[in-house]
Amino acid sequence: MTTNATPMNGAQSLVQTLVASGVELCFANPGTSEMHFVAALDAVPGMRCVLGLFEGVVSGAADGYFRMADKPAATLLHLGPGLANASANLHNAKKAGSAIVNIVGEHATYHLEHNAPLTSDVEGIARPMSHWVRTSRSSVSVAADAAQAVAQAAAPPGQIATLILPADSAWGPAEGAAPALPVPKRSEVPTHAVEAAALALLRGQPAALLLGGIAARERGLELAGRIAAKTGCALLLENNVPRLQRGAGRVRAQRVPYVVDAALTKLQGFRDLVLVGAKVPVAFFAYPGKPSLLLPAACNVTRLAAVEEDIVGALEALADRVGARGMPAAHVAALERPALPSGSITAMGIGAVLAALIPEDAIVIDESISVGRNFGAATANAPPHDWLNIMGGSIGFGLPAATGAAIAAPGRPVIVLEGDGSAMYTLQALWSCAREGLNVKTLILANRAYQILRGEFASVGAGAPGQRATDLLGIDRPALDWVALAKGHGVEAVRVDDLEALAIAFRRALASHGPSLIELVL
Amino acid sequence: MTTNATPMNGAQSLVQTLVASGVELCFANPGTSEMHFVAALDAVPGMRCVLGLFEGVVSGAADGYFRMADKPAATLLHLGPGLANASANLHNAKKAGSAIVNIVGEHATYHLEHNAPLTSDVEGIARPMSHWVRTSRSSVSVAADAAQAVAQAAAPPGQIATLILPADSAWGPAEGAAPALPVPKRSEVPTHAVEAAALALLRGQPAALLLGGIAARERGLELAGRIAAKTGCALLLENNVPRLQRGAGRVRAQRVPYVVDAALTKLQGFRDLVLVGAKVPVAFFAYPGKPSLLLPAACNVTRLAAVEEDIVGALEALADRVGARGMPAAHVAALERPALPSGSITAMGIGAVLAALIPEDAIVIDESISVGRNFGAATANAPPHDWLNIMGGSIGFGLPAATGAAIAAPGRPVIVLEGDGSAMYTLQALWSCAREGLNVKTLILANRAYQILRGEFASVGAGAPGQRATDLLGIDRPALDWVALAKGHGVEAVRVDDLEALAIAFRRALASHGPSLIELVL
Repeated sequence: MTTNATPMNGAQSLVQTLVASGVELCFANPGTSEMHFVAALDAVPGMRCVLGLFEGVVSGAADGYFRMADKPAATLLHLGPGLANASANLHNAKKAGSAIVNIVGEHATYHLEHNAPLTSDVEGIARPMSHWVRTSRSSVSVAADAAQAVAQAAAPPGQIATLILPADSAWGPAEGAAPALPVPKRSEVPTHAVEAAALALLRGQPAALLLGGIAARERGLELAGRIAAKTGCALLLENNVPRLQRGAGRVRAQRVPYVVDAALTKLQGFRDLVLVGAKVPVAFFAYPGKPSLLLPAACNVTRLAAVEEDIVGALEALADRVGARGMPAAHVAALERPALPSGSITAMGIGAVLAALIPEDAIVIDESISVGRNFGAATANAPPHDWLNIMGGSIGFGLPAATGAAIAAPGRPVIVLEGDGSAMYTLQALWSCAREGLNVKTLILANRAYQILRGEFASVGAGAPGQRATDLLGIDRPALDWVALAKGHGVEAVRVDDLEALAIAFRRALASHGPSLIELVL
Repeated sequence: MTTNATPMNGAQSLVQTLVASGVELCFANPGTSEMHFVAALDAVPGMRCVLGLFEGVVSGAADGYFRMADKPAATLLHLGPGLANASANLHNAKKAGSAIVNIVGEHATYHLEHNAPLTSDVEGIARPMSHWVRTSRSSVSVAADAAQAVAQAAAPPGQIATLILPADSAWGPAEGAAPALPVPKRSEVPTHAVEAAALALLRGQPAALLLGGIAARERGLELAGRIAAKTGCALLLENNVPRLQRGAGRVRAQRVPYVVDAALTKLQGFRDLVLVGAKVPVAFFAYPGKPSLLLPAACNVTRLAAVEEDIVGALEALADRVGARGMPAAHVAALERPALPSGSITAMGIGAVLAALIPEDAIVIDESISVGRNFGAATANAPPHDWLNIMGGSIGFGLPAATGAAIAAPGRPVIVLEGDGSAMYTLQALWSCAREGLNVKTLILANRAYQILRGEFASVGAGAPGQRATDLLGIDRPALDWVALAKGHGVEAVRVDDLEALAIAFRRALASHGPSLIELVL
């Protein structure tokens, strides 16, 4: 702990430590117990704070921010219920390997015994969604705890660190900020893992690299493409990856499908699978009579690198080992822009509009669920862009993640492909986009149903839905009016009923800066 | 367990058991793992299901439903993240003593080991907000577990029981429904507690009854009024109570204020406090240099009845003991309707409009936070009505609770007094009101700020807010458009800028059936 001549309180030592540790952004929804932290934002320079009107916006934005900035943001949350509201998107962030430092206010330590209305088990609420939880029980320990939280969050690939801050730890005296701790590095992959992977690829059986984590970034894909060029292996991508760098000029890998039968078909021919930051493919849900594991029994699995290991270094070593380092990569996507389609709005038509208009360097946030299953294939030859998937399956990720991504990459257009059902969980993110003037273009895919559940209802063997079940799968009575919802949050919006209108509206949105929304009625 | 000739699955045995146990309503936001439960709603008669587009709507509605129906509803939630989204309003419900039976879907038991994206520690998420948590690990045990969950929820005053339902426990074979278990009764208060309370009131020192829980219902208040008439004691009400029956012809008690200094002033003269379903008054938050406990040191505390005990029986016994049973009650409110006010919209003016127009038998849901501090006093002489407070301090309670209250009491108008900041946490409830045609009249008190935090910022000694702090306390940039937000959810709405317009709009809303919203720009 460094000493500091200026007297400061715990909250000030916390903000100063966060800034010193490289945390410069805080997504916040504060309450009474966080007022000293809020005050410290003015006392201590260097921390930008972005308000969300619901905590799911706050945590989802921190996830999107990390994926584009490769460094953690802080969140500021109000006691146990505020943390609980943030938890669904913390779950998504945890599954994404995103680093987040949660600062959660708590009653003053001496006040807890009185069981005031907002008293709850904050550590208990934090634990399921956090890798690390600590309560700072004294104002003098806050700074060191904060430095520890940032270091913990930075553990590869990225972790959720939750620091609980009792009010008296915030307002009590502190001795100064704490210095940043060293950022943990990705551990090197052992030689025998590289050797095993090489042997798997060179065995002469049908083989594939299955890519996940940062293997889906440009450098990892490029190396994988060279290895594929040399060995003839296929390139597969986990069903969802945190950030896929794709488009023209980049190496393309095939996504393992969500639907179990399609995934089984895709994987059935392989006899060797090499995991590169990926796990053995598993069904998203269990279905009666269908397997949980999607690999054929005859397929050998070899792990080159776990998601937290030095994936790029491992791919470099593997490329060297198989003699692929100097080769041109296979599976490089060419630039192709289809003609703009016309007619009524269909999933295929939307895919074509996206393929025709996605700008270079766009960031696409994909929470398109059922409608979007063809969007990946349709847009594979668009100019280079980033594609971010929901990683934990808890819908309500898209609009908040776009908020955070836009803040992390202010020069780049952010496109959100968002189901109407999913959008409703965290629609308050639209307001943060409006307030911050973020360059977020939201496409609401309004099929007016939990469309995916109609398929799932049959897939789990529940038969044909009766009237009550049908009522729980449709959200069409009444129809949501997304133009009004956007306007209510201060975001311009338009509704389109055919593909021509979609193209015009999307082009117009991309040509201007700031948030806008297009409701696509399917 | 009863046997049943018809083969059924676990989900059907669950729904049938819930119905047999008196649970006839399910607030739901389902996903894949809950599809067999959804299907069972058509296979088993007797369960009404109401869809919410966000889980905080689901849990808040169950809270409001219990308070008016005096029996639990079920919720249907999707895995850990769905439960997490419900948790803030479960916290409020837990603090209210509301009975709720949560049914939370989970992956099939054999699927959990594969750590699919939606895998999480569901029991860990459930525990902080639940009194009782159980995972039904087999389809044949689901029915008995469900009967146990309902009985547990019904433990006085009402508990949160969470039953986790793995998908294979839902789709596997069951032997039949389980019979309802006996409903636990409130335990009788011992004679010595009644005697001690009588002595405290008869000691001749300034004394008060502090009422909480069901002491705030009509019967408890009437008995308290008679005791006050006989002994001269004051009648106090906890700062928040789950359901206050008030208005003309009913006994009026004085609410302990939220603000610490005001509460200290209110309580300072008493030398004897008798707790009737209430706890010793505690500050909502801690503030530097201010006490957590609000009672003067010289005040004796005597507990007549805990919140889960037979409060009405205890008050009857106390009334008998002090010779008050046959007396007319003191503090009975007379009917007074003020004239409609005019001019710009102020907190006092809104209170007067409410006092002039609240219909008999209305249910008022109060999440008015800072603006509403005078509403109680202003409306004390309106025709008899119910007044429901947020009990756990986690904002986002009002609109969902109104949804549930309206379903529990379909013949009665429900009026929601709702801060704009608070409303944003669970605005999706408006859609459920529209879908179900609920008679919910929402008044959005649009001060366009977390107004309460402006006061709290000073109260905790954080000084004067700088620019960054100011940005976190205001929600005026951009202004939310509540007319558009309501329209987006299918609810008619109007904005009013003066009290005349408010009176016209409120009268019109009350004259029609179904949901409507008025935005009051302060």
